[in-house]
Amino acid sequence: MSSEFGKLLRISVFGQSHGRAIGVNIDGLPAGESIDLQELDAFLDRRKPGKSPLSTTRKESDAPIFLSGLEHGVTCGAPLCAIIENSDQHSSDYQELQDKPRPGHADYTAYIKWDGHADMRGGGHFSGRLTAPLCIAGGIAKQILSRHGVHVGAHLASVGDVEDLPFPLRPDRSLFDAVAAKPFPVLDDAAGERMQALILEARQHLDSVGGVIECAAVGVPAGLGAPMFEGLENRLAAALFGIPAVKGVEFGAGFAAARSRGSQNNDAFAVEDGEIVTCTNHAGGILGGISTGMPIILRTAIKPTPSISQPQQTVSLRAREDAELVVRGRHDPCIAHRAVPVVEAVTAAVLLDLLLEGHHGTF
Amino acid sequence: MSSEFGKLLRISVFGQSHGRAIGVNIDGLPAGESIDLQELDAFLDRRKPGKSPLSTTRKESDAPIFLSGLEHGVTCGAPLCAIIENSDQHSSDYQELQDKPRPGHADYTAYIKWDGHADMRGGGHFSGRLTAPLCIAGGIAKQILSRHGVHVGAHLASVGDVEDLPFPLRPDRSLFDAVAAKPFPVLDDAAGERMQALILEARQHLDSVGGVIECAAVGVPAGLGAPMFEGLENRLAAALFGIPAVKGVEFGAGFAAARSRGSQNNDAFAVEDGEIVTCTNHAGGILGGISTGMPIILRTAIKPTPSISQPQQTVSLRAREDAELVVRGRHDPCIAHRAVPVVEAVTAAVLLDLLLEGHHGTF
Amino acid sequence: MSSEFGKLLRISVFGQSHGRAIGVNIDGLPAGESIDLQELDAFLDRRKPGKSPLSTTRKESDAPIFLSGLEHGVTCGAPLCAIIENSDQHSSDYQELQDKPRPGHADYTAYIKWDGHADMRGGGHFSGRLTAPLCIAGGIAKQILSRHGVHVGAHLASVGDVEDLPFPLRPDRSLFDAVAAKPFPVLDDAAGERMQALILEARQHLDSVGGVIECAAVGVPAGLGAPMFEGLENRLAAALFGIPAVKGVEFGAGFAAARSRGSQNNDAFAVEDGEIVTCTNHAGGILGGISTGMPIILRTAIKPTPSISQPQQTVSLRAREDAELVVRGRHDPCIAHRAVPVVEAVTAAVLLDLLLEGHHGTF
Amino acid sequence: MSSEFGKLLRISVFGQSHGRAIGVNIDGLPAGESIDLQELDAFLDRRKPGKSPLSTTRKESDAPIFLSGLEHGVTCGAPLCAIIENSDQHSSDYQELQDKPRPGHADYTAYIKWDGHADMRGGGHFSGRLTAPLCIAGGIAKQILSRHGVHVGAHLASVGDVEDLPFPLRPDRSLFDAVAAKPFPVLDDAAGERMQALILEARQHLDSVGGVIECAAVGVPAGLGAPMFEGLENRLAAALFGIPAVKGVEFGAGFAAARSRGSQNNDAFAVEDGEIVTCTNHAGGILGGISTGMPIILRTAIKPTPSISQPQQTVSLRAREDAELVVRGRHDPCIAHRAVPVVEAVTAAVLLDLLLEGHHGTF
Repeated sequence: MSSEFGKLLRISVFGQSHGRAIGVNIDGLPAGESIDLQELDAFLDRRKPGKSPLSTTRKESDAPIFLSGLEHGVTCGAPLCAIIENSDQHSSDYQELQDKPRPGHADYTAYIKWDGHADMRGGGHFSGRLTAPLCIAGGIAKQILSRHGVHVGAHLASVGDVEDLPFPLRPDRSLFDAVAAKPFPVLDDAAGERMQALILEARQHLDSVGGVIECAAVGVPAGLGAPMFEGLENRLAAALFGIPAVKGVEFGAGFAAARSRGSQNNDAFAVEDGEIVTCTNHAGGILGGISTGMPIILRTAIKPTPSISQPQQTVSLRAREDAELVVRGRHDPCIAHRAVPVVEAVTAAVLLDLLLEGHHGTF
Repeated sequence: MSSEFGKLLRISVFGQSHGRAIGVNIDGLPAGESIDLQELDAFLDRRKPGKSPLSTTRKESDAPIFLSGLEHGVTCGAPLCAIIENSDQHSSDYQELQDKPRPGHADYTAYIKWDGHADMRGGGHFSGRLTAPLCIAGGIAKQILSRHGVHVGAHLASVGDVEDLPFPLRPDRSLFDAVAAKPFPVLDDAAGERMQALILEARQHLDSVGGVIECAAVGVPAGLGAPMFEGLENRLAAALFGIPAVKGVEFGAGFAAARSRGSQNNDAFAVEDGEIVTCTNHAGGILGGISTGMPIILRTAIKPTPSISQPQQTVSLRAREDAELVVRGRHDPCIAHRAVPVVEAVTAAVLLDLLLEGHHGTF
Repeated sequence: MSSEFGKLLRISVFGQSHGRAIGVNIDGLPAGESIDLQELDAFLDRRKPGKSPLSTTRKESDAPIFLSGLEHGVTCGAPLCAIIENSDQHSSDYQELQDKPRPGHADYTAYIKWDGHADMRGGGHFSGRLTAPLCIAGGIAKQILSRHGVHVGAHLASVGDVEDLPFPLRPDRSLFDAVAAKPFPVLDDAAGERMQALILEARQHLDSVGGVIECAAVGVPAGLGAPMFEGLENRLAAALFGIPAVKGVEFGAGFAAARSRGSQNNDAFAVEDGEIVTCTNHAGGILGGISTGMPIILRTAIKPTPSISQPQQTVSLRAREDAELVVRGRHDPCIAHRAVPVVEAVTAAVLLDLLLEGHHGTF
Repeated sequence: MSSEFGKLLRISVFGQSHGRAIGVNIDGLPAGESIDLQELDAFLDRRKPGKSPLSTTRKESDAPIFLSGLEHGVTCGAPLCAIIENSDQHSSDYQELQDKPRPGHADYTAYIKWDGHADMRGGGHFSGRLTAPLCIAGGIAKQILSRHGVHVGAHLASVGDVEDLPFPLRPDRSLFDAVAAKPFPVLDDAAGERMQALILEARQHLDSVGGVIECAAVGVPAGLGAPMFEGLENRLAAALFGIPAVKGVEFGAGFAAARSRGSQNNDAFAVEDGEIVTCTNHAGGILGGISTGMPIILRTAIKPTPSISQPQQTVSLRAREDAELVVRGRHDPCIAHRAVPVVEAVTAAVLLDLLLEGHHGTF
């Protein structure tokens, strides 16, 4: 087993990019939660391709079909399974790749692991398309969390060297909603323009570019998570690395903390309106793996799309010799902007799971 | 449960810094493995404090007592439990902290989670001291891995802004051994001198400084790990964030990948002596969560030690008002160099766990 | 999460009896395994109702639709999801039950757990119908196991007080096949006749009757399973109690062992053709949770179908007062004979999971 | 890993019978719970041997030493590790057994699993002695449960063919306390006398005898447990089969249900003082894996002690030929009566774990 995560809320993703359907099974959702399907569709739309020259021209229908767990729009306690049927597949594009693994893709490692039996058409089970079912799960989690005062939002922190503004010390739901409503998910639209120019320039050069996504969760009560290996950081990172192309995860100041001093990095505590808060949030809302009550702040590094149209050096698995490859098909010059809702989705799912565990530190 | 990780190899850490003993229970170790206790002691020595002005003057005895699982120096299949008895504790230093949580520490979050019942003397269960039992587990894992051709090594990649050289494309065991034998674990001793100067300068200013640790594992066969949520990155990150003070984890190029182009970041495949390799290793030996056969490369960000001797702003939990705190006791101005073997230990334990699962992609 | 089991092979069941579809997601199947779909259909047919007066007249189409994980009849390594669409539902039969929980059913407990939101039409997620996806998973596991020399078979050991013969000391595949081919799954057809008479008699009295299923697995190598909580007995029992109506599980002599003496119950070891065997098998092939190499023998107690047509005393949840209930709809007077392949399926799935873990006691 | 169970409350048992110490690590205990150590000692005394001719004359000191997790008698949130040092070992008794596995013991299966490296002195990690740390965990769980209105008790339901009375429909704490205070844990002392006579008679014949333990838990709220594979039955059975010598587990009517009719076995619902109850309890307080609010009732079959002093047929592993064995050492002619508190302990631990998960069916 491997395409599952969660403890009390267990999320299993299945499907190959060009198989019959992809989907998700969510076991452990609380019963009696209304799911607004329009709101869910709007959320799924945020990761959909085919909307602009910034992404692949593939059209993907992400319309979820609910097989179980949802009756009259309300969760019934039983596992919720939703699928998305596949269509608009150009499997012929992938013939050559069975012999010549694409650099930067899982073609080779899947070939080794599954001894040549992997169905890698369209990236198979490793395709970014599998993030659609993740978004179904996360979109549902986001709705439930919101009802309980926890809001999750994200923006594109950088593309290549172009940086967006960081989240303010106390982002809130309205800021998340505003970013989500934008065609390009940034705080600073001028930076967003420069990012888009960079993406288009990469496309022109038959190249691709990476980016960083910053995600925040507000309303998380202090005391969530547990020491050592079941902390917020452990659980979030374990799930976030499941998003294809994520190569780094950091919390709060993250790698920048390694370059700073204790006197700068420590967040002073203060009493504000009777609540204990921190004056800065280099900890990203997490100390000892446990939430402080301040916003949870994390960033994930998304590598540049490996599918580029330049000729690349690879090997022929059959001939066991060097070979050249030109990847065909319709690919995104950048997936970081489309991955923004995916990071939200995974973050929300993990937080809901932890909240369902409850404040079990005491009885 | 929270202080445990692993799947077939399950590692449970227990103890509080000033309790009777700390220890580790390792369930699932293969039987019949000789453990060289001198080699293990030498490994544990690498994280021990009290050896230089670069670390706390506390003397910690890290001599493990084996309660089970090891007979005549050979694992017997039953769970291996080893403990370290506590001593040289100055618990009185921690009286004030019960009311005034230290900025940057888990004092406050543990207080909330356990409703005031946490034993936080010396940092309690959140103390860096808990990395000693982790090193027992990891030191044992390293010995078993080595016997099977997998070698794990690490160095201090940076302290503050001072950077060591990165690992070469193909580090090997002799390089790991050379770094491990040095009093200060860097590749470039000149950089090491500058790092040490920086640490001492921080100490003089009653401050502390963070750093980055780079870890490599060589000899890992291609095909280890599984897609989405049980990949090498997921499993390693989940465990590495269990090391106190880790705030970021990245693999291969990591966050730098987010700033690069696909044409740069993709690792070309090539056939070398009949083996399939990659010409660069921006992937850190992992594609789709699965090992490529190239070295596994990861980096962890270690925040500056939060215990600094400058006056800091905090709150009084009882009075629920702002307060000032001067942390007393003997603290490290930097823990990144001492954490180097800990990162090796955790990495080795996760890899052994995954190797025990075997190449189960096919029967 | 709750409707999942397994460790490296993870089986998740979803669906409600009268929802859109029921199904199973199997994560961790080895790649490259051919699945004979005709053989699978024949296996699924064994639990299908509507074939005789011994079972409900409901017609259930159990034709699985494979959404993922199976390409050209061969497993591809990715999770295998298969669904069965629902039809022939008489949901109106269940209106009254929303207020009046059926004695012996999960109506009341699901109502409490999910605070009135459970979809209990046709038994909802608790329905015996959910054993169809279990049989898909188990039928696949049986085929893979057979290819590796492990064969699983079962028979109806008793209905009410009528007992079949027990399995011989060394049952084999041909015996399993012979029983599976019979319309009524017993070793002794005369006993089978008496059982069927008893079932029909129960039906005539608007009553139902329970039974015991005995299951065997041969070809399991010695050394499978692990001490204390991950033994064969723990893992098998945990999964077998997931079959609706199972109220007891025993291995080897089981409860009869509690009435016997050590001198009778101990299985003498002997060398037979160079192999170490036991002369009897009161241990059911399991000592210390670990397989001996002898046949695994287990029995499960199946309670009488709770849905009987006699008037029964229950309560009105709304009025919170006593009430009478006459269960309508088409129900089985006995489900033990239909549960025979289900017990095989679950046993096979658990054994495949354990075999995938491998003989990891040593490296 | 294998000697662990639990989900939010994780219990890991370690040690070999003749190793340096045995122990338990309990991760996930709620903080702030006072543990009455005298009450715990009294509980541990109930399983201790050496008190009468009914059990082995070995003296075992079961005095737990708390290494962590308990400060001033109160749980502090961190993992609680307790050990018992070993003494009074006659390891020489076990020399011969390294070559000649005892019938009915794990000697042979451990030898195979761990390739000859198992430490099987005194039964090693498979020894009944490992139930002492289980009782530490369970004794602590019992105290916490009691404080929350859940009480667990057990009695010896049968030894050989001699049966005790069953628990009444509604056993209570005072009944549990009364049985626990008796030197021989039965409801009907006359039956207890006959059981003891039977045990002594078995001992005289150099034989041993098995028994059945019935356990009840009262005060468990309705709605605990979850459908299919995380139900009370699944979780309890998985843990109970971890007790050495348990070969069967049943709930409520259990195997007797398989011999009865639906009209008998169904428990009618009724309203009693405004509460919904069942008039009988053949379900053992569990429907669909979820608690009904009625007492949880379970029974475990304990096989006769395999260590008997009669000559037995076994094999020589080295010579790979048949051999005779006379087991020496001091063994119990029956362990069922000593296992009564162990069944209570495991049941309590599982229930506490489930209660910590909370009623998470709804948010």
